[in-house]
Amino acid sequence: MTAPGQPAVLGPGKLTKVRRLAERASYDRELVYSVLDEAFICHVATLLNGEPVALPTAYARVDDAIYLHGAPANATLERAVGAGMVSVTVTLLDGLVLARSTFHHSINYRSVVVFGPVSVVTSSDEKRRALEKLVEHIVPGRSRDARAPTEAELRATAVVKVEIAEASAKVRTGGPSDDAEDVAISRIWAGQLPLKWAPQDPVPDEDCPDVAVPDYIAGYRRPGWD
Amino acid sequence: MTAPGQPAVLGPGKLTKVRRLAERASYDRELVYSVLDEAFICHVATLLNGEPVALPTAYARVDDAIYLHGAPANATLERAVGAGMVSVTVTLLDGLVLARSTFHHSINYRSVVVFGPVSVVTSSDEKRRALEKLVEHIVPGRSRDARAPTEAELRATAVVKVEIAEASAKVRTGGPSDDAEDVAISRIWAGQLPLKWAPQDPVPDEDCPDVAVPDYIAGYRRPGWD
Repeated sequence: MTAPGQPAVLGPGKLTKVRRLAERASYDRELVYSVLDEAFICHVATLLNGEPVALPTAYARVDDAIYLHGAPANATLERAVGAGMVSVTVTLLDGLVLARSTFHHSINYRSVVVFGPVSVVTSSDEKRRALEKLVEHIVPGRSRDARAPTEAELRATAVVKVEIAEASAKVRTGGPSDDAEDVAISRIWAGQLPLKWAPQDPVPDEDCPDVAVPDYIAGYRRPGWD
Repeated sequence: MTAPGQPAVLGPGKLTKVRRLAERASYDRELVYSVLDEAFICHVATLLNGEPVALPTAYARVDDAIYLHGAPANATLERAVGAGMVSVTVTLLDGLVLARSTFHHSINYRSVVVFGPVSVVTSSDEKRRALEKLVEHIVPGRSRDARAPTEAELRATAVVKVEIAEASAKVRTGGPSDDAEDVAISRIWAGQLPLKWAPQDPVPDEDCPDVAVPDYIAGYRRPGWD
């Protein structure tokens, strides 16, 4: 996954150094990219009237960049590009951790924060590739079927590139870490409840009743799902 | 859900007015609270060395406030309290929307942004109630079983209250909205792939093999799940 000559780590940097529970932190490029490739919704943090605010949007990673898209007047993208730098946060929820004590209850998760320079993609070719990758990242296999954007649709879509200049990951796995005296309270069940995204039955559009559900929908999976 | 005399709407305000796709926006208190009550992970946006950044954390709503918690030295909470105001974003992913055209692919989601004054909870009683609610919000039923915090554990936990002063929700539901000429391309399947969180088999801690899995774990559900 790491190209030859690339540093294996993406931090810690001034903006990504994890201070709390540093034993859960990593700057490993492969770990960061594995989280970015499993999820497809991020939260982009920008300043709105001087106040930081996070808004959700879809994304796709291509090499060492993240692509975002929206309408040309998308305010979050405008603010991000105006700032020159942006942070993008991706969080995967993996499960609930039930301890005997209220205090040691926890959540298993993997989260990544990326900081990097942000710019508007102006090349039609790069826009096309980014939009195809967005569809393909979210629904692997779909880009073979979906009609490609027209020039008018391309003009009606803003594509923004965030370079992955600096990144950190934070991960919690495993069961509860109760104090020994609480473990002795044997009446309290303790453990983990793993949570996973589960695709439900596809809902065909009313105008395509006779088209078979494609395999990439019927068997929808994300990278990293076992 | 709305107490007598409470305004039914939480906006639009200076910080929460939705500009893009305003037809998807709502400031309805009941809708906002239903999203806050179904999810339990939020992204808190703060300024880190002058750069906006969003970090995930658990939360629980109590009346017209959101409670967050962390270690006393938690940097995100410190920055939020230092700023006096904070925004909290909650996003629920509901499914993928597969259109014939790349352009009309979309995602069904419900997201909420809350802005409000933030303060450290100093009262032991309010801290206890907030921490019990956090456990009970994430695992309904659990607070009956879990050992309550000791005074030392309370001191080792920072609890922060965010008043829900202003909020907006943004919701997309339904199938794709392809152009008529694309609908005619009948070979392309189009529709929705709903996604839901699915609890997996509970994993008991190795030290409690003989304790039955509680009903609230075996039958784990979130408000809003049908």
